[in-house]
Amino acid sequence: MLRVGYPATLAPELLRDFPSEAELIALPDDLDHEIDIDVWIPDPYPKRAMSIWPRLRGVRLILSLMAGTEWIPGVVGPRVTICNAHSAHNISTAEWTLSAILATLKYFPLYLDVQRSGVWKRRFEASTHYASITGDARPLYPPVMLEELTGKSVLLVGYGAIGKEIERMLAPFHVELLRIARTARTEPTVHAVSELDSLLPQADVVILILPSTAESLHLIGRRQIALMRQGALLVNAARGPIVDTDALVDALNAGHIRAALDVTDPEPLPEGHPLWSCPNLLLTPHVAGSSPQFAPRSMRVAADELRHYIKGEPLRNVVQAAI
Amino acid sequence: MLRVGYPATLAPELLRDFPSEAELIALPDDLDHEIDIDVWIPDPYPKRAMSIWPRLRGVRLILSLMAGTEWIPGVVGPRVTICNAHSAHNISTAEWTLSAILATLKYFPLYLDVQRSGVWKRRFEASTHYASITGDARPLYPPVMLEELTGKSVLLVGYGAIGKEIERMLAPFHVELLRIARTARTEPTVHAVSELDSLLPQADVVILILPSTAESLHLIGRRQIALMRQGALLVNAARGPIVDTDALVDALNAGHIRAALDVTDPEPLPEGHPLWSCPNLLLTPHVAGSSPQFAPRSMRVAADELRHYIKGEPLRNVVQAAI
Repeated sequence: MLRVGYPATLAPELLRDFPSEAELIALPDDLDHEIDIDVWIPDPYPKRAMSIWPRLRGVRLILSLMAGTEWIPGVVGPRVTICNAHSAHNISTAEWTLSAILATLKYFPLYLDVQRSGVWKRRFEASTHYASITGDARPLYPPVMLEELTGKSVLLVGYGAIGKEIERMLAPFHVELLRIARTARTEPTVHAVSELDSLLPQADVVILILPSTAESLHLIGRRQIALMRQGALLVNAARGPIVDTDALVDALNAGHIRAALDVTDPEPLPEGHPLWSCPNLLLTPHVAGSSPQFAPRSMRVAADELRHYIKGEPLRNVVQAAI
Repeated sequence: MLRVGYPATLAPELLRDFPSEAELIALPDDLDHEIDIDVWIPDPYPKRAMSIWPRLRGVRLILSLMAGTEWIPGVVGPRVTICNAHSAHNISTAEWTLSAILATLKYFPLYLDVQRSGVWKRRFEASTHYASITGDARPLYPPVMLEELTGKSVLLVGYGAIGKEIERMLAPFHVELLRIARTARTEPTVHAVSELDSLLPQADVVILILPSTAESLHLIGRRQIALMRQGALLVNAARGPIVDTDALVDALNAGHIRAALDVTDPEPLPEGHPLWSCPNLLLTPHVAGSSPQFAPRSMRVAADELRHYIKGEPLRNVVQAAI
C-alpha cells in the first residue's frame, strides 16, 4: 500500500477526501526515528518540514500544500518529483492584492492612526494631525483626497493563475492593464520581461506575482524602482527576493514610491530592520495566501494529485520532475 | 442673465464647463451683504453653506455638489427646487465600501498595529501580540486566518445608483447578494425594507447605502443588530443616524459584530466618544465620497443640470421640487 506521510498538526477532517488506496501516516514535528514514506505532504512551514526530512526514507513524490516550493529542491535533491498546490492560493492571494491596493489608495493606514488618536480629522487636516500624533512629518501621504483605483494604470508582473485572478478582480475598475510574463504572448497582450523597464514608467500600480527563481532575483532593483512614477504603488504578493530591499527602503524613505508587501527579504523581517519604519508602507507578515478556505482547497488539490499518481496518470502541478 | 452663486473656494478651472448664459458669482465664506442669486451651488460643507444662506435673495434652484442633501430642505424651505449630484459620488463611495470590507476581512487594522510594533507575528500569534502591544485583550478579531470575501453572503440595504456600483464591484467575488430597497422589485430581486429583520440573520456583511430620511432613522437599531450573525460586518457608507450608535457601541464592545463606518451619529464624532475605543471597528471621518475626480465630476453634473434649466428641460436629479 502507498504510504503517505502528512503533518500530524493537520485536522483529521481534511484527510477525508484522500483515496482509500493510500495509507495515511501522521508525522509529528518531533519525529525521532527514521520512517519509510512513498509520498510526503510537507508541513506548510518550511522550517518544520526541513527538520523532518532527514528522517524520511524512500520518498518519491512530494505534494506541497503551498504555491511557493522554492526551498524544496535544494533540500530533497533532484530524485524526487515535486508538485505544488498553487490553485489553492489563487483566490486568497488575489483578494489580498486587491485589498492592499485599495487600502493604500484610500489611506486606511493614515486614517487608522487618526482613529486610534480619537480625533475627527478629515483630508488635508488628517495629514497634519498624523504628523503631530506620530511625530512623523516625512514625505508621507501625498496631500490629496482619497484616490480611486478606477481608471488607474496597473502593471501585472507575472501572468500565471494568480495573476489572472487578480485581473478578474480588477475588471470592475476599468484599469489600464499591462501584463508581463517570462515570454511575450497575445490575446490578451502579454509583454516579455525584457520590456519591464519601458513599461514601469507607465504604471500607477505595479503588482509582482511571479515565481521566485534565479532570473527573478532582484528583478525590481534600484534602476527599476527609479523608473517608477512619483507616488506609484509597488505590491509584492510573490516572494521577497524579487525586490532589492535596500533600494526599496531608500525609495520609501525618499517619498518616491509607496509599497504594500506580504513578503520581504529577509523573511521573517528581523526586529530593527529599516523596512519596519518606512513611511507609505503596508506590510503583512506573509499571510496573503492564508484563509479558512485554504486548507481544504489545498488538501483537495493534493488528494486529486494522489489519485492521478495511483492510477499512473499524468500529474497536474509538477514543479520538479524526478530525474 | 441667470445669476449663479458658487463657493469662492472652488478652483476656477472647475467652472469652465458652465454654460455661457449664466453669470457666475463667487460667494466668499464671510459674505457680509445681501445678494440676488437665481441658482445657488452651496459649499459642500453644510455649516459654511448654512451661514451664507440668510444673505441670499431670490434663490429658485439649488444645485448641490453632494449626494446627501438632507440638511437643505429644513434650511431653505419648500419654495426652492433642490437637485443633488449623486452620480459624482458613485464610484468613490462604492470603492470605499469594497475597500473597507476587504481591509476588515484581511485584518489590516490588526496587522497595521503589529507592523507599527516592528515585530513579525503571523496569524494566531498576531492576535496575542496585538493584545500585548495595545493592552487590549477584549474579544477582538476572531481567531482565524485572513478571511475571503469570495462566497460570503452580502446584504445591500439601499439599491440606488451607489448600491448598483457596489454590486458591480462585488461581482468577481461570487457573493450571495441580497438586496433591500424601500419597495420590493424583481429582476433583480429586491426585497422590501419590511423584510429587513428576516434577511439580517442570513448575511456575513450588511452594507448601508440608502438616503437619510425620517423612515431610515435608526433603521439599524438594537433589535436589528441583535439579529446579525456573530462576527458579521456592518458597513455604513450612507449617513450616521441610520444606525443606533449606542446599540452599535454595545455590540462592538461585546464582540458580537464588526463595523466599518465612514459616517457617525453624532458627526463629527466628539473626542472621548465611546465609539473611538470600540474594538473591531474601522472608522474614517466621512471621506468615502471624496477623491480628486469628485470635484470635476460633480461640477459637470451641476453644469449639465444648469443647461437643462436654461433650456426649460426637465431636471435630472431633483430631490425636492419647489411648491
